[in-house]
Amino acid sequence: MERDPIVLAERALGGHQGAGARLIRMLEEGDEGATEGLRAVLPSAGRAHLLGVTGPPGAGKSTLVDRMAAEYRRRGSRVGIIAVDPSSPFTGGAVLGDRVRMHDHAADPGVFIRSMATRGQLGGLARATFEATTVLDAMGYDVVLIETVGVGQDEVDVADLAHTTVVVSIPGMGDDVQAIKAGILEIADLFVVNKADLPGADRVAKHIGAALHMRAAPIDAWQPPILMTEAERAGGIVDVIDGIDAHRAHLRSSGGLDRKVIRRRERVFHDVLRERAAARALACAPRQGAEILSAMRSGELDPYTAVEALLGVEA
Amino acid sequence: MERDPIVLAERALGGHQGAGARLIRMLEEGDEGATEGLRAVLPSAGRAHLLGVTGPPGAGKSTLVDRMAAEYRRRGSRVGIIAVDPSSPFTGGAVLGDRVRMHDHAADPGVFIRSMATRGQLGGLARATFEATTVLDAMGYDVVLIETVGVGQDEVDVADLAHTTVVVSIPGMGDDVQAIKAGILEIADLFVVNKADLPGADRVAKHIGAALHMRAAPIDAWQPPILMTEAERAGGIVDVIDGIDAHRAHLRSSGGLDRKVIRRRERVFHDVLRERAAARALACAPRQGAEILSAMRSGELDPYTAVEALLGVEA
Repeated sequence: MERDPIVLAERALGGHQGAGARLIRMLEEGDEGATEGLRAVLPSAGRAHLLGVTGPPGAGKSTLVDRMAAEYRRRGSRVGIIAVDPSSPFTGGAVLGDRVRMHDHAADPGVFIRSMATRGQLGGLARATFEATTVLDAMGYDVVLIETVGVGQDEVDVADLAHTTVVVSIPGMGDDVQAIKAGILEIADLFVVNKADLPGADRVAKHIGAALHMRAAPIDAWQPPILMTEAERAGGIVDVIDGIDAHRAHLRSSGGLDRKVIRRRERVFHDVLRERAAARALACAPRQGAEILSAMRSGELDPYTAVEALLGVEA
Repeated sequence: MERDPIVLAERALGGHQGAGARLIRMLEEGDEGATEGLRAVLPSAGRAHLLGVTGPPGAGKSTLVDRMAAEYRRRGSRVGIIAVDPSSPFTGGAVLGDRVRMHDHAADPGVFIRSMATRGQLGGLARATFEATTVLDAMGYDVVLIETVGVGQDEVDVADLAHTTVVVSIPGMGDDVQAIKAGILEIADLFVVNKADLPGADRVAKHIGAALHMRAAPIDAWQPPILMTEAERAGGIVDVIDGIDAHRAHLRSSGGLDRKVIRRRERVFHDVLRERAAARALACAPRQGAEILSAMRSGELDPYTAVEALLGVEA
């Protein structure tokens, strides 16, 4: 199997899905040389619209994303999908999950799905997602969907990396209704209430609308629409894609896209800087570093003093 | 209002809840001097049992945590609660949320609730949670419950910081059943199926049991129990607290507690190291740093090359 990241990058740019998949896997595994492959594809990236789809477990995101991909295909766009953390002990994890989902699109080279199980990985979800989306973007997919089951920090991470963020809600999630949390209002460009045939869907939409009404006017003057879908039977999907297109046009005309592109770069820059600066501090004075770590583990040094001692040693 | 972190630390150790609350808020806000206050309380910490309670939105975690706190009080334990990210535009955010929940325990100095809205904060959720739990631990609360609505990385963060992690599920969450995801099996010390009166509760418990059966035997030989609760009417809570006590006894007899204590220290050490090493790299060569950042933002330098350039300048 080809393991040279530059060769994989060239083949991926030439349209070879397997090469793209291997490069993404090497990047995800933290392979040192893989960053060279990423550098080789970076100049070709920057054309795709990056679309985050986030929401709680059980909201039907996978089905929604599949339907959105089908609608994009109908409109002639090529679609990449990054499914974050779908691993399950029953499916044998991410790789088999890809195969199961790819089966529906097996005859269609215009759809490419990659799954990532990033729990606790070096550099975390944000960096791995940045790298995978960059590879798919460079390979010429017009839209790259980032699907995450995350609630909490994962949502913020995805929003930092996407141009348009779709937040999916469903009726019947109880008191701590995820849709109306303050953080969600800040990251959502579109709200989708899925399973709109269930009782309470209108109430969820009303709650979201009321929360939007109460917040300070957004700086970029974009008013997030609240759309109802029944993804299972492909209901409402056309409106979702139209809404995303409208947001994209707004981003282009308002200069918001440039801000999102810069935010994306800054996000990965700071993640990589933190990782590498810390690794270098630990490597610079290996013997003292080991002593400091040992004293920190035993509780002799508290973690804060240990960090100061380590950075003091290095300086 | 007192703002000297050392004075706040002394008052907090003396049992003053308001002083503890202010110290936690200063730490959360990234106040430089607040770390001195944390250092002042650290020697008094280390006696509390740290208990993570995690699960998806709508699982009824707040009610469950309140019932668990009541049961601990019945058993004579003092209880601290850290509620991560409960902010809502309707309640005015975390602070008012504290007041609403504290109302139930207003006459009881043995319960102390702090809420944190940590989205996107410097150093992230893990560090803020470490610091808040350390303050409550040092103040003499016997049990500190960390409640998070996180799904995904937030769960892993909480598990890194807790001695015992309780994962809450409910029936009817759809296909991507959160309870049986691979990552959950690795972090859960106890499973709770809440809203056990709803249809499908037995099926959720069976799925969890089957997933546990399929996984490799855990290294510490602890078999996570699967417990049914109806938190709304306080059903099953006694068994949950008994299960937590059993896990705690197991940790003490197996040496697992030492490993968890070390993992907690390492986690915050690495978080703080990453943050400070990165900040120092940016501060060391301010002019070149600003040039590199500007070239990175404009796309002239890719983020990886920009990091190398910055660390090269510093070296």
